[in-house]
Amino acid sequence: MEQVKILLNEKDIPKQWYNLAADLPTPMLPPLGPDGKPVTPDMLAPVFPMNIIEQEVSTERWIDIPEPILDILYRWRPAPLRRAVYLEKLLGTPAKIYYKDESTSPPGSHKPNTAVAQAWYNKQFGIEKITTETGAGQWGSALSFACSIIGLECKVYMVRISFDQKPFRKTMMNLWGGNCVASPSNETNAGRKVLAEMPDTPGSLGIAISEAVEEAVSDKTGKTRYALGSVLNHVMLHQTIIGLEAKKQLKMIGEKTPDIIIGCAGGGSNFAGLAFPFITDKINGADIKIIPVEPTACPTMTRGEFAYDYGDTACMTPLLAMYTLGHAFVPPPIHAGGLRYHGMAPLVCQAIVEGLLEPRSYHQIESYKAAITWARSEGFICAPETSQALAAVIDEANKAKEEGKEKVILFSYSGHGLMDLLGYEAYLSGNLTDYKMPQEDLDKFTSVLKDNPKAEMRKSGKW
Amino acid sequence: MEQVKILLNEKDIPKQWYNLAADLPTPMLPPLGPDGKPVTPDMLAPVFPMNIIEQEVSTERWIDIPEPILDILYRWRPAPLRRAVYLEKLLGTPAKIYYKDESTSPPGSHKPNTAVAQAWYNKQFGIEKITTETGAGQWGSALSFACSIIGLECKVYMVRISFDQKPFRKTMMNLWGGNCVASPSNETNAGRKVLAEMPDTPGSLGIAISEAVEEAVSDKTGKTRYALGSVLNHVMLHQTIIGLEAKKQLKMIGEKTPDIIIGCAGGGSNFAGLAFPFITDKINGADIKIIPVEPTACPTMTRGEFAYDYGDTACMTPLLAMYTLGHAFVPPPIHAGGLRYHGMAPLVCQAIVEGLLEPRSYHQIESYKAAITWARSEGFICAPETSQALAAVIDEANKAKEEGKEKVILFSYSGHGLMDLLGYEAYLSGNLTDYKMPQEDLDKFTSVLKDNPKAEMRKSGKW
Repeated sequence: MEQVKILLNEKDIPKQWYNLAADLPTPMLPPLGPDGKPVTPDMLAPVFPMNIIEQEVSTERWIDIPEPILDILYRWRPAPLRRAVYLEKLLGTPAKIYYKDESTSPPGSHKPNTAVAQAWYNKQFGIEKITTETGAGQWGSALSFACSIIGLECKVYMVRISFDQKPFRKTMMNLWGGNCVASPSNETNAGRKVLAEMPDTPGSLGIAISEAVEEAVSDKTGKTRYALGSVLNHVMLHQTIIGLEAKKQLKMIGEKTPDIIIGCAGGGSNFAGLAFPFITDKINGADIKIIPVEPTACPTMTRGEFAYDYGDTACMTPLLAMYTLGHAFVPPPIHAGGLRYHGMAPLVCQAIVEGLLEPRSYHQIESYKAAITWARSEGFICAPETSQALAAVIDEANKAKEEGKEKVILFSYSGHGLMDLLGYEAYLSGNLTDYKMPQEDLDKFTSVLKDNPKAEMRKSGKW
Repeated sequence: MEQVKILLNEKDIPKQWYNLAADLPTPMLPPLGPDGKPVTPDMLAPVFPMNIIEQEVSTERWIDIPEPILDILYRWRPAPLRRAVYLEKLLGTPAKIYYKDESTSPPGSHKPNTAVAQAWYNKQFGIEKITTETGAGQWGSALSFACSIIGLECKVYMVRISFDQKPFRKTMMNLWGGNCVASPSNETNAGRKVLAEMPDTPGSLGIAISEAVEEAVSDKTGKTRYALGSVLNHVMLHQTIIGLEAKKQLKMIGEKTPDIIIGCAGGGSNFAGLAFPFITDKINGADIKIIPVEPTACPTMTRGEFAYDYGDTACMTPLLAMYTLGHAFVPPPIHAGGLRYHGMAPLVCQAIVEGLLEPRSYHQIESYKAAITWARSEGFICAPETSQALAAVIDEANKAKEEGKEKVILFSYSGHGLMDLLGYEAYLSGNLTDYKMPQEDLDKFTSVLKDNPKAEMRKSGKW
């Protein structure tokens, strides 16, 4: 019998999060206001509680995880590290494939790692209601779950295409007491404006963010705040428990530092959660190939520009220095709904700029093919987002076979696909199509970036 | 921090299954042919492979689990024993509530414990294709999964009401290479006959079993066999790994023998899996209240008769001595689709006859209410079947509170409800109804039992 599960004792769970901002060779570019000046913590106060803003701007390397948050995480953490011995055998690869299984949380993905933390900090700050957006529904489910456990009201704007394709995601949120509406909705100015211009829009995360932020800042009682499920520094921070656990688990079994680390990236938090604790090793000289994977249909890292851009469609958020396709980008309705964001976490982007990462994109048909290979060898059904990482894992394992090298591959199994079987049905029925946006169409979306303040920074080479 | 997960090391997984038939005070009544004579193993040979028939009739107390089966089970076993501290707090009960979490298998329920074993024994016997039926879809998914891993063809007849309500169950089976059709279908004589008489029937497990058995025995090559997901002795046997693990886990933390054991029961395998290893303790004098729970809408144990009856609607199976509502019973389309069978495992029924169990029934609205309480305290979403057990758990925990006793309650968390959110949606929208069949209607269904051979045995008191 080969060991397929590496379990960490509860007492060995990491007690601190890791902050990559402390170790990046170049300091992060600050978020800017529309006037081109750095935003101050006070300016963010209507949107986020101050205890989270402090984390957002922190450059401390280690930040303590409060005990009550750990108490909730213990319900499913430490998460298992697993070895995919059956996929290895099927591929005939000398590579060892490990994966960190984030599918065991109640909502079935990595998202609760930060949802619980954010809900807890909001509650501590006296907040009573949280608004948010969700793409495929993983984040909305996770925040509904966290708010239910911690005792907060939760309002979720769900991208319309996913809302229509996945009605049970709404049920899941309702079940935990969350309130979920399709975005664009008639409940906000931002939503009404988009509906007037594009009544048949499938929606986008950018639009949904605008709606959720608008509702939060419009509450005159001051008891509502907004929560973001990815992109921001504090979200990356909360997810580092993934990689920190994985490091301990590899050490437990005497395994070497991975040669290759892979994770799918929409806003970046799943990828960052696994990869950031290993990036420090790379900065200190370890030879690790670190690959964030995105869909070819939404090629933020592989075809976007590194520029200051808004996080949302209605330009309500600060400007962030990141790879972006332009804030008005409306991606095609692919099934990996969690990977349809126009931007990318600034921390991930800065690591790309520093040459620490090697972003890559895959089409969805190849990704689903990888997911079926996985289900029929390993037995588990992965999320469409996770399938993108799997496509890269299989490529790298095959490459190791060609080279005859016993490489160690580690990837993030960001979630299960039990709520996403519509995509599998489309794939199995041969009804799935791939899409790559023509350059001229992409250029139209990115052309808005030239008007943004300090856009010239990205050309100066000074960062 | 309180310990909420009790994990067993892989090396401590039970290496043998436990056979209750060895310990019941009275020997089991044999299955009978239509002529009223006991069926011989040879007569079952067209339906099951001989290695499984040997297990079916065995009275050995312990049966070795083959190493290759353990190797597959290790993918998710040993399953966690969890303590529901948050439900305890919510109820304010002095009771300690433990649950054996069978939701962590790839298909999300306890069913793979026997699906893997059955597929493996069939493969060993040279079989190439397995046919089966499924109610809610848990069993069909589990067998498709097992056949995919072991390398067998799989054909599933799915009760029409569930097939229509849960289209993604079919996708799940297809994903693992299984072939799923709605039952009654036009593919068998049994199916065509029912469709001719009741074209709009929601179907039943009894009908689906008839179709699956017919396809298996009609294969002239002799390479097809049938597999049943519950009811039979060998299925109960394979599931005892649940209770055997739970016993070890309670011992690990120094907990006493449970005062109360609860499991939902459709065909009986989930309940038996947890309860049988503890029934021996009860036979040997331990004071344990053991409660199989069923829906009021399908009240096999609480309102059925103990009699010889067919396992299927078309009377193709042997006659089994069991509690039954009559083989023609068509239950109303409740959401706990796994609990809609007219009969019950003979081993469970014999234990009821011996006075070892205290069956109980709950309505589905009360069960869903319990499931929502669970989701908002413990955080996890349970299957509609599991919710029936939860209703009983909450009742018993409240009773312990009234009595001021620190009772230990152990129940089987048979599966997650992520594939069953339609029922939750109906409950949350207030569209769910309860049903209790009038006695006169029930009498019509059970009236067929008087014509069955040796039916008088049940009245003689001689068993």
